[in-house]
Amino acid sequence: MIKAAVIGATGYAGAELVRLLTDHPKVEVTTLCSRQYAQQPFSFVYPAFAGIVDQLCESVDLDRIAQKADVVFMALPHKIPMGMVPDLLEKGVRVIDLSADFRFKDVQTYEAHYEPHSAQGLLKKAVYGLSEIYSDELREAELVGNPGCYPTCSLLPLVPLIKAQLIDPATIIIDAKSGVSGAGRGVSLGTHFCQVNDSFKAYKVGGHRHTPEIEAILSDSAGQPVFISFTPHLVPMTRGMLCTIYANIGGNVDEQLIRNCLTTAYARSPFVRIMPPAVMPETLQVRGTNYCDIGFYVDSRTRRIKIISVIDNLVKGAAGQAVQNLNLMFGFEETMGLDGVPCPI
Amino acid sequence: MIKAAVIGATGYAGAELVRLLTDHPKVEVTTLCSRQYAQQPFSFVYPAFAGIVDQLCESVDLDRIAQKADVVFMALPHKIPMGMVPDLLEKGVRVIDLSADFRFKDVQTYEAHYEPHSAQGLLKKAVYGLSEIYSDELREAELVGNPGCYPTCSLLPLVPLIKAQLIDPATIIIDAKSGVSGAGRGVSLGTHFCQVNDSFKAYKVGGHRHTPEIEAILSDSAGQPVFISFTPHLVPMTRGMLCTIYANIGGNVDEQLIRNCLTTAYARSPFVRIMPPAVMPETLQVRGTNYCDIGFYVDSRTRRIKIISVIDNLVKGAAGQAVQNLNLMFGFEETMGLDGVPCPI
Amino acid sequence: MIKAAVIGATGYAGAELVRLLTDHPKVEVTTLCSRQYAQQPFSFVYPAFAGIVDQLCESVDLDRIAQKADVVFMALPHKIPMGMVPDLLEKGVRVIDLSADFRFKDVQTYEAHYEPHSAQGLLKKAVYGLSEIYSDELREAELVGNPGCYPTCSLLPLVPLIKAQLIDPATIIIDAKSGVSGAGRGVSLGTHFCQVNDSFKAYKVGGHRHTPEIEAILSDSAGQPVFISFTPHLVPMTRGMLCTIYANIGGNVDEQLIRNCLTTAYARSPFVRIMPPAVMPETLQVRGTNYCDIGFYVDSRTRRIKIISVIDNLVKGAAGQAVQNLNLMFGFEETMGLDGVPCPI
Amino acid sequence: MIKAAVIGATGYAGAELVRLLTDHPKVEVTTLCSRQYAQQPFSFVYPAFAGIVDQLCESVDLDRIAQKADVVFMALPHKIPMGMVPDLLEKGVRVIDLSADFRFKDVQTYEAHYEPHSAQGLLKKAVYGLSEIYSDELREAELVGNPGCYPTCSLLPLVPLIKAQLIDPATIIIDAKSGVSGAGRGVSLGTHFCQVNDSFKAYKVGGHRHTPEIEAILSDSAGQPVFISFTPHLVPMTRGMLCTIYANIGGNVDEQLIRNCLTTAYARSPFVRIMPPAVMPETLQVRGTNYCDIGFYVDSRTRRIKIISVIDNLVKGAAGQAVQNLNLMFGFEETMGLDGVPCPI
Repeated sequence: MIKAAVIGATGYAGAELVRLLTDHPKVEVTTLCSRQYAQQPFSFVYPAFAGIVDQLCESVDLDRIAQKADVVFMALPHKIPMGMVPDLLEKGVRVIDLSADFRFKDVQTYEAHYEPHSAQGLLKKAVYGLSEIYSDELREAELVGNPGCYPTCSLLPLVPLIKAQLIDPATIIIDAKSGVSGAGRGVSLGTHFCQVNDSFKAYKVGGHRHTPEIEAILSDSAGQPVFISFTPHLVPMTRGMLCTIYANIGGNVDEQLIRNCLTTAYARSPFVRIMPPAVMPETLQVRGTNYCDIGFYVDSRTRRIKIISVIDNLVKGAAGQAVQNLNLMFGFEETMGLDGVPCPI
Repeated sequence: MIKAAVIGATGYAGAELVRLLTDHPKVEVTTLCSRQYAQQPFSFVYPAFAGIVDQLCESVDLDRIAQKADVVFMALPHKIPMGMVPDLLEKGVRVIDLSADFRFKDVQTYEAHYEPHSAQGLLKKAVYGLSEIYSDELREAELVGNPGCYPTCSLLPLVPLIKAQLIDPATIIIDAKSGVSGAGRGVSLGTHFCQVNDSFKAYKVGGHRHTPEIEAILSDSAGQPVFISFTPHLVPMTRGMLCTIYANIGGNVDEQLIRNCLTTAYARSPFVRIMPPAVMPETLQVRGTNYCDIGFYVDSRTRRIKIISVIDNLVKGAAGQAVQNLNLMFGFEETMGLDGVPCPI
Repeated sequence: MIKAAVIGATGYAGAELVRLLTDHPKVEVTTLCSRQYAQQPFSFVYPAFAGIVDQLCESVDLDRIAQKADVVFMALPHKIPMGMVPDLLEKGVRVIDLSADFRFKDVQTYEAHYEPHSAQGLLKKAVYGLSEIYSDELREAELVGNPGCYPTCSLLPLVPLIKAQLIDPATIIIDAKSGVSGAGRGVSLGTHFCQVNDSFKAYKVGGHRHTPEIEAILSDSAGQPVFISFTPHLVPMTRGMLCTIYANIGGNVDEQLIRNCLTTAYARSPFVRIMPPAVMPETLQVRGTNYCDIGFYVDSRTRRIKIISVIDNLVKGAAGQAVQNLNLMFGFEETMGLDGVPCPI
Repeated sequence: MIKAAVIGATGYAGAELVRLLTDHPKVEVTTLCSRQYAQQPFSFVYPAFAGIVDQLCESVDLDRIAQKADVVFMALPHKIPMGMVPDLLEKGVRVIDLSADFRFKDVQTYEAHYEPHSAQGLLKKAVYGLSEIYSDELREAELVGNPGCYPTCSLLPLVPLIKAQLIDPATIIIDAKSGVSGAGRGVSLGTHFCQVNDSFKAYKVGGHRHTPEIEAILSDSAGQPVFISFTPHLVPMTRGMLCTIYANIGGNVDEQLIRNCLTTAYARSPFVRIMPPAVMPETLQVRGTNYCDIGFYVDSRTRRIKIISVIDNLVKGAAGQAVQNLNLMFGFEETMGLDGVPCPI
C-alpha cells in the first residue's frame, strides 16, 4: 500500500481522482486538500460519496501532506503547482501534476503560452505523462506532467503514424470536440446550462494552449518541427471527447498499413482499443473509463486519412491517466484501479 | 463461484446486469441470451464492452442454459417469463425475474393490469424482491419477482412510515419522475431524441401498472387496503428516478420521529442513505449506483410530510437490486459486486 | 404606436421582452437598460439579434427613460424596482414590474418572505398581472405586478375550479417542475451545465417564495385562507414549466363538470387551451409561446383530480404575460405581438 | 396570395414548412399531405398547433392537390418525389422539392449515390435552390431542388472564396456537426434518446451522400473538378448545424481579403451574417431562424483558413430556404415569412 494526497480534490478532475484512488487496491488516500471546502467533508461537496468518502477536506500544508504521502496528485490551475512542486520533491514525495506547469521541456514554449516559470530547473526532470508513449521514462519518474485532454486524445493515434512516416506531418488538422466538464467546476457564463444546452460552438479558434503541447510531442516524434491546425469545440454533454483528425498519406499507404502500425504500437496497451474496419467509436462507449478508442478511414479519393479518437476527458484525459502513471511509477499492474466495468449507457 | 445466465441481455436492464455481474467476484456469467443479436458478440451491441465481454449472444435454449447456470436472470417483457420459469425451476435453477410476472401474490390483480397468467401456481412461492423489506424471505427464495423501478423508489421510504403509523395511508400521493432508459431500448416515437430533449411531460396519468404493485405492498404493510395517487413523468435524461411523495401526518408526528423511524429501519441497509436535515437528494448522486437516497421535510403548516427519494432506475430500480437479491439468495455479502465508487458527475 | 423601455434587458426575462416587443406592431422600444452591458449593443450580448436589435444598452436614468416611454418593463431582481417605480409613476409612465415587489396586496406577506417594503402605498394600486383572471382591473392599471412563473402555471387551472367549489382548497398539492432559465442568467454552481445535465432534483422543498403568492390569490378566489403544499423541481432543459396538481373533489364532481368549468372560464381567453379528454400537455408544445395548456384526469378511485398545466416559463411565465398585460392596458388586441406560430420541435 | 400544398407535412422538415407558411402573409396553405396521419388534424400530430393548424392531413392525390395549389413543397424521402414531380409540373404547378431528387445536373452522380432516376429529363430544368448563389435562376424556376443541410452550411462560405480564388480547392476539409432533427422523425436506434444523449459521434465517415452534392457545386464555382473531405457528426441537440471548414490560402491572402470577399458577396443577402473579427458563431444564435452566420480565422502559422458556419438545419438547411426560394420564385420580398425575431436562448 502506498499513501497518496490530492491537492485540488473538489474540482472535477480532483474528484475523479478521489473516485479512482478510493477504488485502487494499493492506494490509501491520506489527504484531500480543497481551499474552498476546507474543514468540510468531501461528501458534502459530492453527496454521491456519502458514507464512502466522508473525510474532511483540508487547506494546503505541504509539510503535513508530505509526512503522510508517497505521492501527491495536483489538480490545480497552472502556475500554482510550480510554486509547490520543488518543495514536495525535496521532501521526497513523488508528484503527478495535472496542470500544464511541467508538460513542456522547452521553457520558452511554456512561457509564450502561459507565464514566467519559477521552477525551470525541474522541466528536464519532469516526464510527460502520456502513459503509452513514455512508459519507460514514467517508471522512473519523480515528477510527471500529466497531459492535457486534447493532447491525449490527439497524440495516441498520431504518434505511431508519424514515427512510421505513414502520414505527412505538415498536413495534420485536428478538429476536437469536448464535453463541458473540461471547462472545470468554476462558474462562468460559458458553462451556464442555458448557454450550452442544445447548442454547439467552437472556441479559441485562433489559438488554444493545447496546440503547442500537441506540436511539441509531434515534433519529438517526427524529429522535425511540426505545426498543426487545431480547433476545439464545446458539446452539450458532461463527459467525453472526440477528435477528428485529418492528414495526407503517402502514395503506398493503405488501410492495412495503418492498421498494422496502430495495432502493433498498442499491442501491449490495455487502454487503447483499435476499432474494426469501418467502425468508428463514439464518446458514450468510453464514458467513465480510461480507454482511448480509435477508428480510422483511408480515403483513396483524396489520399487523406480520417481518424476518430475518443476518450473520457476526465479519465484518460485527466485523472485516469494520472492513476495509470502512478501504476507505472510504483510498479503496479497498469490497469490497477482502472478496470471497473463500463456502463452500457 | 456460482454460474449465472442472463436472458434478455441486450436490453438496457439486461446490459446493466451484464455490467454488474461481470464485476461480481463470486459470479461467472455463462450464458447471455438475446433473440435480436444471437450469434453476435455482446460487445458488438455495446462497444463499451470491447475486450471485456466479447462473449457471443445466444438464442434461448432452456436446457442448455440450465446445464450451465445456478441462477437465471430474466430481463424480458412481461408474459414471456411466465412461459419459461416453471421449466427452469424444475431443472433446479433459481430465477430472478425482472418483469412483472411474479411480483403479485394476487393473480387477479396481475390479470387485471397485465394478462392471463399461465403459471399461477408459482405466485405464492415467488418472493417480492424489495431487498431491504423482504430480506428474510429472499434468503430462501427460489423465484424472485424483482420490483419495478417506481415501486422501489416509492416503497423504501413509505413502508417503514406506514408500519410505524406515522403517515395516513389514505392520503399518499406519489409524483414520480424517470429518465428515459426506463422506457427500454426498443425504438418508438416516445423515445426519439427530438421528442424528449428539452421537454418534460407526464404520461399514463390515468393509470400506470406500477400503481397496483405499489398498492399491494403498501396494503401488506398497513394491514388494510391502501389506494394511492401515482403520476409518472418523463425527464430528458438517460438514468435516474426521483419520487416526490406527499402524505398527511398524525398530530404528534415531527421531524425527529420520522428521522428515527427511517434511520432505525435502515440501520443495517447499506444501500439506503437518509439525508441530513433539510438536505434533499438529486438523481445525479446515485447515478450508476445501487443506492436509494431519501430526504424529507415535515411541513407543520399543512401537517404533511414531503419525501424526496432517488434511485438509478437501471440499478436499484432493476439490475442492481436483482444482484442484491442474488447476494441474499446465495449468502454473499449484500454489497458484493455493487460497491463500485460512484462518479462525482 | 406606443413607446416602451426595458430595464434589465439582458437577463433572460428581459431579453425575451426584447424579442416580443421587437415583433409587436404597436410598440417602439426606445430604451434598453443593462447595468452590466451599458454602452454595448444588445446584439453583442445576444448575437442572435445581430442586425435586428443593435441598439446600445444604457445604464438606468429614470428621467431619460420617462421622456421616451409610455410604459416601462422592469425585469430586475426584487427590491430594486420598489426604489424606482414611485418616481416613474409620478412622471406619468405606466409600469409593468416582473419582480415580486408589487404582487402582494398585503405588505406583511411580502415582508415576511422578501424584505422591508419602501413603497407600500402603491401595493393597493398595483394590479396582479394574471391576465386572464384580472383582465378588467388590468385595463385600467398604471402599475402591474407581473406574476411569478409557478403562480401563473398553478393558478390558471385552479382559480376557476376553486371559484366553482369543485375542489377542496385544503387538499391542494402542487408538484412543479421548471427548466433552468427560471434561475436567470446569473452564474452559480446550481446552473453549471455539469451539475444540471442528466440530473433531476427538488429545491427549496421547505419553502419557496412563490407559495405565499399562490396562496394569496387562491385565498382571494376561495374567500377564505388557503394553504397549499408546493414543491419546485429543476428539469435539465432550458425552457418550460409543468405543474402536476392534486386536489380532492366533491362527491358529485366528474370529468364533465370540470371540463365545463374550465372551458367556460377560458372561452374568451386565446392563450389557455384545454386539452381533449385523456390528453395531457407537455412543455415542448408551448415552447416559445404564450400558451398555458391544461389537461386533467378525474380519478374516481381516490376521488382526486390530477391537473397537468404547462407554460413556457419565460413567456407566459414572464415576458409574454407582461406583453399580454400591456395589450390589455393599452387597449390592443390581446394576442398582439404574441401570435407567432410555434415550432413543431 | 398564392396557394401552397405540403406533401410530407408531418415529418420534421414538413412541419417546419407548415410553421413558416402559416406565418407567411402571401401564402395560403390549402393542402397538407401525410400518409401516416391521413384524416387526422395536423395539431393532433403536433399539439403545439392546436387552434392554429387544425386542418386535416390528407393522403396524396395529385389532381386534388394541383387544383388547389400554385406551388407544392415536397418533404419526402428521395425517390418518391421523382415519381410525382413530372405530373405536377404538367398540371402547371411549380414544385420545391426538399429531397435529393432534383439537386444534381449530372444524372450519373445522382445514380451513383442514390438510385436509377426516372425523371432525368427534368434535371436540366431544375434549379439548385441555394438561394443566395442561384437567385437569378430561382426567380424563373418551375422546379427547385432544395439543397441539403450540410451543403447549404458548407457552400455559403466556400463559393465566394473559391470564385475569388482565395483558397485552394484541393485542400478543402469540412468537419460538420448536426443536431438530431436532421435524421428525421422516423424511429431508429440511432435517434433513441439514450443512444444520443450525453454522447458525440461521427457517422458515415467513409462517405455521406452530401459529399457529391457539395463537390458538384464547388466544381461549378471553381470551373474544375473539386474533391473534398467531408465528415458529419451527431450532436446531442435537437436543432442546429455547424461546419468547421479548413483550406489552404494563397500567399497574399489575409484576413481583410477574405472579409472583403464575403461581405461583398453577401452585401444584399439578408440571411447571411458575417461575424466581426475574432468572433465565431454558435448554433444557438440561429435557432429557429433562416440565418447562416459565418466567422473565420486566418492562421498565418499554417497558411490555412478556418471557417465556422452555422445554420438551423431545419430552417436555412431545409424549410426556411424552401420558403426563401418561394419568395424568389413568386417575386415576394426575400425575407417574407422568415423575419420572426429569434429567441435569445
